[in-house]
Amino acid sequence: MSEFTAVESLPAPKTVFLKESLNEGLPGPEHFDIVEGEPIDLDAIEEGSIVVQAKALSADPYLRGQIKSTGPIKGGKPVRGFIAGKVVASKNPAWVVGDLIGASLAFSTLQVVTATGLAQTVSWKLTGLIDESEISYGVGILGMPGATAYGGLIDVLRPLAGETIFISAASGAVGSLVGQIAKQNYGCKVIASVGGPSKCALVKEKFGFDHAIDYKTVNSADDLIAAIREVAPEGIDMYFENVGGIHFDAAFATLRSRGRIALCGGISEYNNSAPTPTTFQPLKMIYTQQRIEGFLAGDWLQGAKGNFLVDMNNWFREGKLQVQETVSDGIESWPLAFQSLFTGANVGKVVVRV
Amino acid sequence: MSEFTAVESLPAPKTVFLKESLNEGLPGPEHFDIVEGEPIDLDAIEEGSIVVQAKALSADPYLRGQIKSTGPIKGGKPVRGFIAGKVVASKNPAWVVGDLIGASLAFSTLQVVTATGLAQTVSWKLTGLIDESEISYGVGILGMPGATAYGGLIDVLRPLAGETIFISAASGAVGSLVGQIAKQNYGCKVIASVGGPSKCALVKEKFGFDHAIDYKTVNSADDLIAAIREVAPEGIDMYFENVGGIHFDAAFATLRSRGRIALCGGISEYNNSAPTPTTFQPLKMIYTQQRIEGFLAGDWLQGAKGNFLVDMNNWFREGKLQVQETVSDGIESWPLAFQSLFTGANVGKVVVRV
Repeated sequence: MSEFTAVESLPAPKTVFLKESLNEGLPGPEHFDIVEGEPIDLDAIEEGSIVVQAKALSADPYLRGQIKSTGPIKGGKPVRGFIAGKVVASKNPAWVVGDLIGASLAFSTLQVVTATGLAQTVSWKLTGLIDESEISYGVGILGMPGATAYGGLIDVLRPLAGETIFISAASGAVGSLVGQIAKQNYGCKVIASVGGPSKCALVKEKFGFDHAIDYKTVNSADDLIAAIREVAPEGIDMYFENVGGIHFDAAFATLRSRGRIALCGGISEYNNSAPTPTTFQPLKMIYTQQRIEGFLAGDWLQGAKGNFLVDMNNWFREGKLQVQETVSDGIESWPLAFQSLFTGANVGKVVVRV
Repeated sequence: MSEFTAVESLPAPKTVFLKESLNEGLPGPEHFDIVEGEPIDLDAIEEGSIVVQAKALSADPYLRGQIKSTGPIKGGKPVRGFIAGKVVASKNPAWVVGDLIGASLAFSTLQVVTATGLAQTVSWKLTGLIDESEISYGVGILGMPGATAYGGLIDVLRPLAGETIFISAASGAVGSLVGQIAKQNYGCKVIASVGGPSKCALVKEKFGFDHAIDYKTVNSADDLIAAIREVAPEGIDMYFENVGGIHFDAAFATLRSRGRIALCGGISEYNNSAPTPTTFQPLKMIYTQQRIEGFLAGDWLQGAKGNFLVDMNNWFREGKLQVQETVSDGIESWPLAFQSLFTGANVGKVVVRV
């Protein structure tokens, strides 16, 4: 039996619950409950378990699909997503009290995670990379969005020096990192699609992107094609897809020979019950030798591919990557923070500090 | 100046000409002329040139797109495609008389290829791999179709041991090799789509494929989906696309997580003026981590990727790969041989022996 190390007493946990499945429409505070539970009985913790105190809850677009009736998060159940926090009790030899952890877990201020629970989810150690004051990075640049940007750009799109990349939702948690890695490590020309003039200014001034297209001024795929062609007359080599809809159509239409599309998300479609089908001609991709690839962050987040945590932390410490966050305080603020992803009220990574 | 080595005299060349662009419909003898030209004046051959005597002309589906008004082969001009033959005169130090050559050239029984012409086309040396009696392999297993199968399977689809692959036009020059390499080198389960009972028998008996679906008994994508699910209840890991239309739709619908589609051709669409658009949901590919990739054989045929000529020849000599050919004689038979690709009258590689 491993040594049981723990704090002396813990407050009662609070948890975000989904009231009922939401297939269509904008999610908001009315769809969630924040429920206070019984205090954790530290004496009852089983061998192999840890107790995790959440310090940061993530708000990510992919969760919109998870709370549909076809998704894994059911009405009346806790919402699960990415959190960063601290181990406050451990009967697991791999973790000691004080360790900083990133993981996909319930959105609870405090929770017991059993050995089985740890085996069934993704988790990674942040100890040594950041201190507690930087814990929000564990759901951002050193968390799922960071791994998504890293894997999606480096291993899915595989940039060549000097190529042109188009990124939708380019001021968001993932898009902002994709563009900066492309710019800093590959010398790519970065074309950003963002909503509104202030985000256009941000991506150029803070992230150093070459061009910004305000998609709110664009009414059709043809408009967007024209806007892309204005700054990339010969088309784009890569498209990092976060949005769907006319963004996909315009990117496919302007994709050059040997061009690649990484499918990461489709936020424009998430509040619909079913995504709008795209009409396209796969045969067009033969002579142009093009590739379209969907991917998830898991392989990179768990270290099965690449060297995400170390590389990303180094690039950040070297000043290559700038981080932009929209932070709110308290678990009660999570539903509104989540909503902001779909209204565009957010900039950069949306984090709830607990 | 390199030594000029040549045969003493050469007969007058015959060449396949396209009468006029053909945007729609079945190509046939009425669309081509076989024209006899002036004998080649060996004294007038420039430094760097070679004279190639064609021994085998290829009939490949991709040529159907080349003779449309949007394609590179214009009315009144020679048809260019893959040939295998012999160097019968050379002022080029890289080639000696008697060398066996594969190349994309005019469909001429005899032609001068200048240094510029050699630089602008793809060519490869067959000397040492085959003798003249096997010259047809230079437009098949050791030519473009072989390189297509090799690159498309190994580097585009990237099979894992024991995976399930679905192949359309699976008794054809490319499909038959894809399935055999998948079976022999990766232990894949091979599901073949072919037209008619005799081709069903052939792919199972000669090529060792696991299952054959007669697409002529299938009337819709739903029928084809049912036929695939009958032999692969959990779906397919890979699809090698030679056909388009309902084959693409059914393959996409049955593609498993981490599934890949290699887009090689779309023969069902080639006689139409424009391919039928496919309706699909790219967002579906995110959570399933799927990939769709178009490709051409050039990189492998020219040795920029892989080790095609050596590997394929070894596998063939080891008895791993069986070759099936439909051979006709004389350059005059090329138009009808080409037509057979679209009527299904061919089996395996369609070759015209000259």
